[in-house]
Amino acid sequence: MHKARVQTLFIAILIFSLTRAAYAESLIDRIEPPFWWTGMAEQTVQLMVYGKSIGKATVTSSNPSIIVQNVHTTDNPNYIFVDLTTELEQGEANTALRFELDDGAQQTVRYTFNARAAGSAERAGFSSKDVVYLLTPDRFANGNPNNDAVAGLTEQPNRSHPGGRHGGDLQGITQNLAYLANLGITQLWLNPIQENNEATYSYHGYAISDLYQVDARLGGNQALLSMTARARELGIGVIMDSIPNHIGAEHWWMRDLPSKDWIHNEGKFTQTSHRHEMIQDPYAPESERREFNDGWFVPSMPDLNQSNPLLANYIVQNTIWWIEYAGLSGLRVDTLPYADKHFTRDYNQRILAEYPNLNIVGEEWSTNPAVVAYWQRGKLNQDGFDAGSPSLMDFPLQEALIQALTEPEADRKGLMRLHVMLANDFQYPDADNLVVLSDNHDMNRVHTWLKQDVALTKMALGFLFTIRGIPQLFYGTEILMDNTGTDDHGVIRSDYPGGWVGDTVNAFTGQGLTQAQLDMQNTVRELLNWRKHSVAIHSGELVHYVPKDGVYVYFRVHKDDVVMVLMNKNEQTKQINTARFKETLGAHTRWQDVLTQATGELATGISVPAKTTMIVELKQ
Amino acid sequence: MHKARVQTLFIAILIFSLTRAAYAESLIDRIEPPFWWTGMAEQTVQLMVYGKSIGKATVTSSNPSIIVQNVHTTDNPNYIFVDLTTELEQGEANTALRFELDDGAQQTVRYTFNARAAGSAERAGFSSKDVVYLLTPDRFANGNPNNDAVAGLTEQPNRSHPGGRHGGDLQGITQNLAYLANLGITQLWLNPIQENNEATYSYHGYAISDLYQVDARLGGNQALLSMTARARELGIGVIMDSIPNHIGAEHWWMRDLPSKDWIHNEGKFTQTSHRHEMIQDPYAPESERREFNDGWFVPSMPDLNQSNPLLANYIVQNTIWWIEYAGLSGLRVDTLPYADKHFTRDYNQRILAEYPNLNIVGEEWSTNPAVVAYWQRGKLNQDGFDAGSPSLMDFPLQEALIQALTEPEADRKGLMRLHVMLANDFQYPDADNLVVLSDNHDMNRVHTWLKQDVALTKMALGFLFTIRGIPQLFYGTEILMDNTGTDDHGVIRSDYPGGWVGDTVNAFTGQGLTQAQLDMQNTVRELLNWRKHSVAIHSGELVHYVPKDGVYVYFRVHKDDVVMVLMNKNEQTKQINTARFKETLGAHTRWQDVLTQATGELATGISVPAKTTMIVELKQ
Repeated sequence: MHKARVQTLFIAILIFSLTRAAYAESLIDRIEPPFWWTGMAEQTVQLMVYGKSIGKATVTSSNPSIIVQNVHTTDNPNYIFVDLTTELEQGEANTALRFELDDGAQQTVRYTFNARAAGSAERAGFSSKDVVYLLTPDRFANGNPNNDAVAGLTEQPNRSHPGGRHGGDLQGITQNLAYLANLGITQLWLNPIQENNEATYSYHGYAISDLYQVDARLGGNQALLSMTARARELGIGVIMDSIPNHIGAEHWWMRDLPSKDWIHNEGKFTQTSHRHEMIQDPYAPESERREFNDGWFVPSMPDLNQSNPLLANYIVQNTIWWIEYAGLSGLRVDTLPYADKHFTRDYNQRILAEYPNLNIVGEEWSTNPAVVAYWQRGKLNQDGFDAGSPSLMDFPLQEALIQALTEPEADRKGLMRLHVMLANDFQYPDADNLVVLSDNHDMNRVHTWLKQDVALTKMALGFLFTIRGIPQLFYGTEILMDNTGTDDHGVIRSDYPGGWVGDTVNAFTGQGLTQAQLDMQNTVRELLNWRKHSVAIHSGELVHYVPKDGVYVYFRVHKDDVVMVLMNKNEQTKQINTARFKETLGAHTRWQDVLTQATGELATGISVPAKTTMIVELKQ
Repeated sequence: MHKARVQTLFIAILIFSLTRAAYAESLIDRIEPPFWWTGMAEQTVQLMVYGKSIGKATVTSSNPSIIVQNVHTTDNPNYIFVDLTTELEQGEANTALRFELDDGAQQTVRYTFNARAAGSAERAGFSSKDVVYLLTPDRFANGNPNNDAVAGLTEQPNRSHPGGRHGGDLQGITQNLAYLANLGITQLWLNPIQENNEATYSYHGYAISDLYQVDARLGGNQALLSMTARARELGIGVIMDSIPNHIGAEHWWMRDLPSKDWIHNEGKFTQTSHRHEMIQDPYAPESERREFNDGWFVPSMPDLNQSNPLLANYIVQNTIWWIEYAGLSGLRVDTLPYADKHFTRDYNQRILAEYPNLNIVGEEWSTNPAVVAYWQRGKLNQDGFDAGSPSLMDFPLQEALIQALTEPEADRKGLMRLHVMLANDFQYPDADNLVVLSDNHDMNRVHTWLKQDVALTKMALGFLFTIRGIPQLFYGTEILMDNTGTDDHGVIRSDYPGGWVGDTVNAFTGQGLTQAQLDMQNTVRELLNWRKHSVAIHSGELVHYVPKDGVYVYFRVHKDDVVMVLMNKNEQTKQINTARFKETLGAHTRWQDVLTQATGELATGISVPAKTTMIVELKQ
């Protein structure tokens, strides 16, 4: 065990002295989760206990209010799973759990149930009132240069390497939360922050080596608590990146698998086909569905077998643990279709049973809305399946947006892409709860997609911030960060300027930004701060009209509160006659631009500048 | 009224002498339907009665078993709608219907309820056991040159004009049904045969001027009865082209509309937007939905307002009338989304209430399977709507098929198009009941799509005849008819060679066909006659494997009856190792090619010739 990985939380549970007859060694190396809570909807927590031959132990609890309901073992004698049940509704409680082997070796550990924070179960999830800022923790701001390298964690910092660790951390984020709040951001989605002890590419975050520990180079668990506390003060929620599909090759399980079937293909790499449609395809042979479902994403990410109920339970509990521990507002679920779909359903159900108002957005990276919609809660699938995901990433609309702004206008091309794709919303049970994006950490930045055309990038964001759904902004988009000339993900996830001591450009203060960057940053700030208070955008009906002459007009309508959006893709100003929109204009007679504050009469038409998403509020 | 249009059926009902005080003229010009049947599920038939001021008449029935249930009038006093109800379960019956005006003018007409043919209600519709042959009646065979021109019908024959009338007729089809039966055809879909008295382009058929009359140039109603009788002898069903959306500008209604709202926009042309997605789009403004739904297809096709219940009833009854009168096996419903969708639901429901086993295939020409699936009976749409169409034309698969065979192989291109599109079948309640096609009368012929490549065209048909669904073959495809160099629909619908006296090429006998044509015709004949008896193709499960190296392999599996299809798009023979298909091969050890009868061991692999859809049956 690496010294750095002996974590305080883990240590805390080993409070009783322990003996083993001849060897004086600890019976138990790990207990996970390290603690739990009273007053949860599900009254049983299942502990994974790891230690040599621990599977043969008898387990007893000293506290009659905390009962050993059951134990489970696997084909690996070094694991035992202990179902601990408590009906205590509130307050802290603990018990001395005694593990005893036939040879008389025994160990007693204290296991604690904490009190829940007030209102924990009822917490609100992120919603269409919010704007989500996605950032890569290693790449935003280096708040604590002292943790860039940590003993026991293999990869060392190397800021000159796009794929290396650059030293960003949670403290850096915490220090700059005020900037984000000022920008109008209300939710933060962090790429995974748990320990990734891979030798290379560990900043990526998706190859977790310890599911209960924030990577020490990001500051560890305490830094997360500090960050969420500060975020809460600023009205910013935190969304965690959850990865039920796989772990990292350096996860401690890989040295002694909890069971032969814990990892698909008994722990040996087989490649997934990446063919998402296998999940819905009524004609897929079982072998090909398995190739997709059970294959590994990449060799460094062993694929978890969620059909093992002990594993499934572990993942669900781990997720609930983080929500409760860090006070999260939601989850983003990685590579949704790659996990067993019945597990995904149970995962959603169990998490939402604990937090009925939480939001969970799944990553189904398909541009076919039928495939994305398949997963949403309430979807009336012909096969009767309901995966129960409240939200999905709207990749179909993301693709349509890029096409809309880069293709010449033609029948079913250009802006018609947006119209036709949004018409597909009839397939979703709740399109208003989709997360809309122009890009993310796994693809070109939008400014690159749009060939570094500032006007088009501004058009894209004007669309994102006003269309139905929950906008997600990738960090740095507000200062036109781009990756033109390369598709290296390390460049896509470049360092945010100003986050490192010595940065000559500082986007937090504006120092050194170009005029175009400042202008974009300012536009985003103005739009998002306006958006915060627009009920029409948060919950208004969408009404859109077929694009004509390179102009797409849509409305958000909430009673008398009406926002009109005019996307003019032309190189020229367009004068828009409003007669066509009569039924949506209602009794309104005037408009006011939310950015320029310019006003005018609807009856005399609206002049939309070239290459502009013009956003106006209607007035009586 | 044109002399030629005074039809025998209509005359037949005016059997009583009639008087009108001062004028001695007929009160009644038309009654539709001209007769009805006893023993229908719906016991009421609604007569449209047309005559000057007839709307003010009182109507009485002489037969106490045939009751005037109700009468309805409109804003046009020249129409009255009479609900006649009979509970008679079988046998012929009639009544003297007396119409009397306030001024004492009266007229009595005999109205007949015929006896239904035995088993009429229970008739089987077309199904996946069938192959449908689509033909344009004016373009297949001229059985009776004497009816090429008919007094009173405006357009004269002109075979030299691609858009003109060429003289084909139902008698010509009847004479050649044996050819089709021999080819393996079991269903005939005719482009509309009802009277089109347009001055130009009347062969097209979709601008009907009399909904109860077969065009006299096609032979009139009697010729249809002769054709269906002969078809029945040969085991061929007949599918009628039903057009609930519109009529022709020369329809008699247009001279005195039954009501102001009978035709959208009060009988004046407005263009439909052709934007099918308006029907599902949750965000479409009412004005744009109406523009699509209520606009006319073209100026020559006045758009019917199906939200008028009298009109809706007329259309449904007219359709039932043809099914019962001509003994049809099903319907193809033209321009499905253009009609009011609630009407479409009622239309399907009422027709299927009379004929529960009938099949009805709707034309939703969208390449988005979600839009097509929206209409199918049993579809769990999020909006709760079920249009109830048992079958749809599979345009998404049609497009995918052409792309599959013309695009170079690449990720998600080429043969992968077929795989991905079929994976979308999860959206359909019943993909097995879709009609699959490679082309039809409204688009390039498949041999043109495929750049006159005979091998590719053969590959396309091999696919169509073995994939799930009901194959539809456009006339002449079996002899490689094509329209290369033009998209003139009159050329796409060229005359079938041999159908006209003096044709130097005769595809019915084979005389003058090229070797390639003969070969294709023979291949189609062999495949379809084999298909007739393949339970695996009719009702076997589809299992398909991801295309690899330009080869797409799928199976149809019905218990031990297994058909394996291997589409090799390469320019070279491919040796296929069967190990990958183990789970589908079951206990089978050998294969036999259904065309060449060649056999081999599965274990040693299958050698698939270049550019071939190889179809083999598996043997134990």
